[in-house]
Amino acid sequence: MSEKDILLKEWERIDDLQYKGLRIIQDTRGFCFGIDAVLLVNFADIKKGNKVIDLGTGTGVIPILIAGKTDASQIIGIEIQTDMAEMAQRSIVLNNLEKRVQIVEGDLRNCVDVFGAGICDIVVSNPPYMNQGGGLINPYDAKAISRHEIQCTLEDVVSVGSKLLKNGGKFNMVHRPERLVDIIWLMRNYRLEPKRLRFVHPSIGKRANLILIEGLKNGKPQLKMMKPLYVYGDNGKYTDEINKIYGRDEKNAECGLQIK
Amino acid sequence: MSEKDILLKEWERIDDLQYKGLRIIQDTRGFCFGIDAVLLVNFADIKKGNKVIDLGTGTGVIPILIAGKTDASQIIGIEIQTDMAEMAQRSIVLNNLEKRVQIVEGDLRNCVDVFGAGICDIVVSNPPYMNQGGGLINPYDAKAISRHEIQCTLEDVVSVGSKLLKNGGKFNMVHRPERLVDIIWLMRNYRLEPKRLRFVHPSIGKRANLILIEGLKNGKPQLKMMKPLYVYGDNGKYTDEINKIYGRDEKNAECGLQIK
Repeated sequence: MSEKDILLKEWERIDDLQYKGLRIIQDTRGFCFGIDAVLLVNFADIKKGNKVIDLGTGTGVIPILIAGKTDASQIIGIEIQTDMAEMAQRSIVLNNLEKRVQIVEGDLRNCVDVFGAGICDIVVSNPPYMNQGGGLINPYDAKAISRHEIQCTLEDVVSVGSKLLKNGGKFNMVHRPERLVDIIWLMRNYRLEPKRLRFVHPSIGKRANLILIEGLKNGKPQLKMMKPLYVYGDNGKYTDEINKIYGRDEKNAECGLQIK
Repeated sequence: MSEKDILLKEWERIDDLQYKGLRIIQDTRGFCFGIDAVLLVNFADIKKGNKVIDLGTGTGVIPILIAGKTDASQIIGIEIQTDMAEMAQRSIVLNNLEKRVQIVEGDLRNCVDVFGAGICDIVVSNPPYMNQGGGLINPYDAKAISRHEIQCTLEDVVSVGSKLLKNGGKFNMVHRPERLVDIIWLMRNYRLEPKRLRFVHPSIGKRANLILIEGLKNGKPQLKMMKPLYVYGDNGKYTDEINKIYGRDEKNAECGLQIK
């Protein structure tokens, strides 16, 4: 479907994902997707024919990227905010992905009742990073809902993710290192044994500011600590690995997704 | 006491710790201390007058370094292996540290019965890294006991450490990243909330091969992820931070503890 056929609200814009022609509708006043979503899609080990669920899909960037980058057969994005879910749905139509991607408006805490337990191979999530109780929050603000645990807690995401996964299915999440203890503790308690962990550092020598973690449903304990991922090199430019993740090559370093 | 007054067995040697004249007796056939112990002592936040217990002290290198580097008033090293405890005791005498450091031969699992609960400010441990069941192990081999969880498990170290600590006391451990999930899960379960975590990388871009972790007895959840610690720089030489930890300065880069 062309851009002309898609109704845009006056505060929205269509951004080019610069990957296989994929595009996304974003709210210029609200939460725009960042490097987190891109790194998560790159990190997740998604195989041909996999059924994938994205918990808290927001504008749908993760399902769209997964559809573009993998051979997953079905990708479902769950989003509680009506406006956001509707915007994500228009992006799916814009990219002609209706056959592989479904956006479902609803509370992820009801997912298991709606879809059933043990029904997918992969769960991904880029959940709100801030836990409740940290400062004044407007609970009706879309940006706040995307960033703070207002509509769901970390425990909701982990527990629902575990129930949705088949035995041997994989849970993938991007989050902040400050929550690592909560994440690991909850994942093991909900039988999503952490198997791969990667720290993302803004540059060499700086503290990690993101983590990527994979848990295996009913897996045995054995964590693989991956190499650190540096976003910027000593020269102040994106590292080769980041350029590769964003689909840029050396000859064409300006192409690919913009890093926000 | 001078070296002449200390009886050495034929397979032992006295190594100079090259820090304030401290020395240590080591078994040339067995487990010699490495960078792990030195980094752990540097990592632990030990205040003047603190009472410290080292669980599984081996040759006593950690208590000796703590005595040299901090104003801890009392340091107790627990060691289950008779030969090792006796060797550690001779190193304490060699360094004239009998007033501040006690080596106690015994099973750390009995520590709370012997010393009581809630009696120290700091627990440190450089426990065996390998969990049971990994390959063939000679259970009577001193090197194996230092490396494998034969005489005590990670859970023993964490649970005993928690019981020994006062409310607000700090548990400090060096371990392998592969055990991070077990460590975090056990620490939280035994009310040693992880507060500081540091990854040690052999060099920039390489996977971390050691972790340093601090838990606060009955602490609230809030992890501080520290900057990575690199052992070697791009030039193949020790980084400035490692030189500083080992008490070397630029003018005298060959001084200080030898990195094994």
